[in-house]
Order: sequence, then structure tokens, then C-alpha cells
Amino acid sequence: MDSDGERRARVALSFLAQPGDLVLGAALRIMTPVDLLATITGADEDGEAVLADQMPDAALARALPRWRDRLTEIPSTAHLARWQQNGMRLVIPGDAEWPTQLDDLGDARPLLLWLRGCADLRLSCVRSVSMVGSRAATGYGNHVAIEMAAALADHDVGVISGGAFGIDASSHRGAMAAGGDTVAVLAGGLEFGYPRSHADLFAAIAARGVLASECPPDRGPTRPGFLIRNRIIAALSRGTVVVEAALRSGALNSARHARELCRLVMAVPGPVTSEQSAGCHELLRDYGAMCVTCAADVLEHIGLPGEGAGSIRLGPATPRDGLDPVTTAVLEEVPARGGRGPASIAVRAGVDLDTALRCLGMLAADGFVERSDLGWRAKRRTSSQRA
Amino acid sequence: MDSDGERRARVALSFLAQPGDLVLGAALRIMTPVDLLATITGADEDGEAVLADQMPDAALARALPRWRDRLTEIPSTAHLARWQQNGMRLVIPGDAEWPTQLDDLGDARPLLLWLRGCADLRLSCVRSVSMVGSRAATGYGNHVAIEMAAALADHDVGVISGGAFGIDASSHRGAMAAGGDTVAVLAGGLEFGYPRSHADLFAAIAARGVLASECPPDRGPTRPGFLIRNRIIAALSRGTVVVEAALRSGALNSARHARELCRLVMAVPGPVTSEQSAGCHELLRDYGAMCVTCAADVLEHIGLPGEGAGSIRLGPATPRDGLDPVTTAVLEEVPARGGRGPASIAVRAGVDLDTALRCLGMLAADGFVERSDLGWRAKRRTSSQRA
Repeated sequence: MDSDGERRARVALSFLAQPGDLVLGAALRIMTPVDLLATITGADEDGEAVLADQMPDAALARALPRWRDRLTEIPSTAHLARWQQNGMRLVIPGDAEWPTQLDDLGDARPLLLWLRGCADLRLSCVRSVSMVGSRAATGYGNHVAIEMAAALADHDVGVISGGAFGIDASSHRGAMAAGGDTVAVLAGGLEFGYPRSHADLFAAIAARGVLASECPPDRGPTRPGFLIRNRIIAALSRGTVVVEAALRSGALNSARHARELCRLVMAVPGPVTSEQSAGCHELLRDYGAMCVTCAADVLEHIGLPGEGAGSIRLGPATPRDGLDPVTTAVLEEVPARGGRGPASIAVRAGVDLDTALRCLGMLAADGFVERSDLGWRAKRRTSSQRA
Repeated sequence: MDSDGERRARVALSFLAQPGDLVLGAALRIMTPVDLLATITGADEDGEAVLADQMPDAALARALPRWRDRLTEIPSTAHLARWQQNGMRLVIPGDAEWPTQLDDLGDARPLLLWLRGCADLRLSCVRSVSMVGSRAATGYGNHVAIEMAAALADHDVGVISGGAFGIDASSHRGAMAAGGDTVAVLAGGLEFGYPRSHADLFAAIAARGVLASECPPDRGPTRPGFLIRNRIIAALSRGTVVVEAALRSGALNSARHARELCRLVMAVPGPVTSEQSAGCHELLRDYGAMCVTCAADVLEHIGLPGEGAGSIRLGPATPRDGLDPVTTAVLEEVPARGGRGPASIAVRAGVDLDTALRCLGMLAADGFVERSDLGWRAKRRTSSQRA
């Protein structure tokens, strides 16, 4: 099946089903997105019988009419092109930029992700932590979020959050203030950009990080959409830090997703007199969350060197002579200073663009190369003390 | 051996050895306090050989001259009588008021305890929690200590602490403010009463609770004495709550003792921006302490009904008809209103005073009787919601 066909089918399906639709996920284990779309439109007359044969429960019978009711919502190709001209790009499973850790979500795996921003989503998540918390954050919570995110950035660890008011925004801002990577996973579409008053924040994130959403770009967030989105925030990183959360805060839902995905769940304690920390204390008390008080604690838990370990290594994790010949050829063409675009590197190394991107991704994950404003460059092999 | 002889010998030994002297504790496993004193004074010429035979290491050889150097410090009987006239009483292992949980300290068990105050030490510790923390407490820490101690008192749970500035004082005050029991274990002697500026606090504790110290009453506290005293605070209760403590605070030493004694270790979180909570966070993060945010959390951990359990039982734990005949006879003589002294109860029940005290202790522990200003009275069988 051609990749463009699958891409178009996934986009169409994303207009028919709500994010996280488990029936759709189950159906996609049985047939391809193209075939499933054809089944829904009626173009494939046998598809429904195939699905019904392997999905014995009533869920499919209820879902098919629901999906069919929305067939008119599938936008034209021109509409999609306009979004892409406006700086949005689409990634689907199998793409170089698709974060494969999302596959841990099983049937709840997003159909696709719309992205906006300079950073590569997959690479941004390699060394990252999710930071979530209350929208109605206190001065204390915002302060801790900013400091922790900035200190993580100092250790080359990016922050993934939800772009909301309060702890989310402070986490993004702290990471960016220290020159770090940040990823915002929005509950609504990227063009809709909720909350609207975060337009400047979203522009700043796009300028050096990346915004992501599984929703069609013009769609506003729904109330359940926030909770459904949380599974992506939890799945993208190795661990989720709840910075400040009241009891019954949505941030605790992110923590639950993280736990279900076997990610680390960390919580920042606060004054026991503050209702805005009661959710964190509940996590510590009743759910075995790890107590983290600073970035060094987080780094220690997620298995990266923290303050206690002394200096941290910024150089490669594997020796250069352990690389395969193609990867070595790509690495040879990455300049030590300035930067070079992946297409240029591909031409010089004598490989196609996809291969170059795949090699650059692995090289970045292993600490050999990094992105700069001018493209890719070799990473300096230095050690630095934690600031 | 007569009890008075052992009592006099233990007092004498308490002037020769420092509190918690493990060599002395080991020697007391081999011979009685009377024989050990005779060995030290030289009255028993064979004693030293007996000890040396069973204590093969060099510790005894170093300890004996040290103890002998201090023989002149043993006060006269008149001196001891003066302390007792001044409201101090002496309890030793085997006495009805001796808290047998101190036996868990092994060779570090105190030789004796000097007590001052209206309450019975052993009974005060039956339903109790140790609360410790920083002397340089913050407003936050003092607030939490007072609220927690008062709420514990509302549930008939007493507070054991060290009488120091900061968290200790707030814990005692919170318990007393709610009409609860409190026990202060001082590092120096009870007559010396360190810190001096807590004279009023100590008087208030004596008026309704009890002050305890293993040191001779006129002795001031020593620097190591504070840490050695902490083992008693930890041993007396079922669990120790560290309310607020900086890194390297003496309160963490109490927590260590509690852990070594298989008592529960609990810590109250605070702002991660506060150095005065860093010790609590260390306990939560690295030592598996339980996170407690309020009295209900403490009650849940120590196995008493908390808020979540609804109303709490103030009546007896065992049915009245499960009592043995002697205890039943004692219980019959405890009035429902007002109060009656133990000697009077003993006469009416036809038992000796020691038996009456032992029975009253068990009856109090099981919730049948309680102390009042007028002596002992039967406990009302009511339930009450947590305030």
C-alpha cells in the first residue's frame, strides 16, 4: 500500500472518529486504514462483514453509523493543503518523525499527529520528561515548574506538557528560558490553538520546539478531549512529573496514564496546607509515586546522571567505531560548527533523504549530533557540572 | 533481690555511665544491677572476673576505670529524697509505670527514668505518636505540628516529643490545647529543665502529662545526649512523624531510631523551596518514609481509625465478659463519674496496690477506664466524629 494513500485515509478517519476511539483502534488491527475507510464509505462492500466476523461485540455495530454520520466532515484535499501551507505537517506511524513509543498505547494509539514547529518530534522526546499540573497553579507551583524545567534543559532533557494555563505554561517557559527543547501536545487542533491567549506561547514553542495534536487543526477542544490527550503526554516520555495538582485534577489523570504505560510517576510535594498540592500528596501516599524535589531527583529516577553523579556526560553513548558504515558516512558529513541541512548531508553522504534522517535520528539519540539553528552539527564531547 | 536494692543500684549506675552506654547494657545481661555496682565499687572481688569471662572484647576493660572514676558522683540518699520530695519519681524496669516497649532498645535500654507529672507514663504511651522536627521551625512547620497534634488528641492519641524549641514545643502545645496527653522526654535532667525558657511549658506538661528523663535530675544536657535521648522518643510510640526537618537535622536521627526499632517512620512534606523541609523529603525519597499530610493519615498508618474510617470507637476494644475475675473486680470499683484513687480501688476490690495498678493499666489500654482529675473513672462508650 502506498504511504500517501494511508496518509489520506488516516486523515479522513480522524474526522470520523473521536481521538482515542478504541473501536477504531481495534478495527485497524483487522484491516488497513484504506480498507477501513472504504468499509465505512461503503466502497468496500465486504469490509463490514470482515470486521463483524472478528469483532464479536456490539461496539462495532454502534460505531459504524456514528462514523458514517460524519463522512461529510472530511475536508477537501485543498483544505488539507492549506493547513500544510500554513506550517502544519502530518506524521503517521512509520514516518521517521513518528515517536514509536506511542505504539505502547495499543488501540488508543493516535491515528496521526499534526505538528507545527522547528523541532523533530521524535528526537525531542528521546531525552524528555513530561511535566503536568494544575491550571490554577499557585506562585509556588509555577516557580517550581519553571526552575525544574530550566534545570532539566541545562541537562539537555526536554519538557513535554499540554500548553494549558498554570503548570503546563510554566514548564514550557522554563524549558525555553534555559534554551531547552519543549513539546506541547494540545487537546484541540493546532490552528484553533486553545487557549487563545497562549498564541504568543505557542508561537514561541513553534519557533524552537514543536506543537502536536491528534485533532483536525480547526477543531476546538472538547471537555473529554483534555483527558484523552493526556495519554499522549504520558506516552511520549520516560516519566511524568506532577508538579502541583489538587485532588481530582486532570494532572492526576496524566499520572494514571503514565502508570498504566509503565512510565515513571513522580510528584513534587508542597505545603500540606495547600489544596493545590493535595493531589501530589495523594500520589505519594497512596500510589507509590516517587518524591522529586528538584531536577536532579528527576534525572536520577529516569536514569540520567543527576547532581549526585557529579558531572554529566554530553558526549556519545556509544563509541564512534561501533557505528555501521552508512551511519558513519552520514556522521562524516555533519559539520563540527554551524550546521548543515539533512538534504545536503544526504547528498554528500551518498544516501537518500530518508536514510539520512534515520541515521541522524540515531546519531542524535546516541549523543553524536545535535540540531542547531543552521541544521545539524556534531556535538562537542564535553562534560559540564549542573548549574 | 529486693526491688529497693535494684532501684538504688540503678540510680547509682546512672551516675557512673552515660545514657545509652552499651557496655553497661551488656554487663547487665550478665549480672544484676546490684552485683554490677558491687563489682564496680570493688565490694564484689569476683565480679570483674565474671564479667571479663563473658565479655571478651576490650570494651569492658576501658569502661570499668571510667565508671570507677565517677564513684564519687553518686549522691547521698538524702539528695535522692529531696528530688522525690520535689515531685520527681523514679521508675525502673518491672515497675507498673515502666513502658515495656523500651525493652526493644536491648543493651541501650535506659537504666531508669525520672518522671514528673500527673500522667502515668506507660498508659500515656499506649495510644501515642512521636512527633519531632526542627528547632528552627518555620511558621508552616509550627502550624502543621499544632494542628496535627491537636487533631490526634481529638482521637485520643497522645503526642511524645522532646520538649525542645520549634516542632517539639508546637507538638506538645497542640496536644494540650485539644485536651490531649503529652509526654516530653528531655535530654537533660528534669530539675535542670533545658531549655530554661521552656519552664512554663514543662510546668504545663507536668500538670496534665508527664516529663521523662534518664539523666540525673540536676544534670544539664550534653551535645551527644540529644541524639541518645532520641532513641527513647522513637521507642515509646508506634511511629514517629517528622514534621519539619532540614538535612542533617537531629529529627532525622529520631527517624533512624524508629526505623531500627521497626516503628513506623512518617514525614510531612513541605515546599521544596524550603530547606527546613528538605530532611522530610529525603525521608520520603530515599528512606521509604510514609507521606502524611494530616492526623487522619497518621491514624491510618498506625492502625487506628482515621477520617476515612468514619466515626472512631472510644469504647473498650474487648468485651467486658472477656476479662479475668481479678480485673473484673477492679473494674467494678472504678466509678462511672468523678474518680477514685488506685489505693482506694485496691482496698475495695480486695487486691494489693500493684495488682490494682496493673489491672487499671490493662483496662485503660483496652478502653474501659480513663484517668480524671479525681483519679480513675469508667470510660463512656460513645462514638465521635473527627473534628
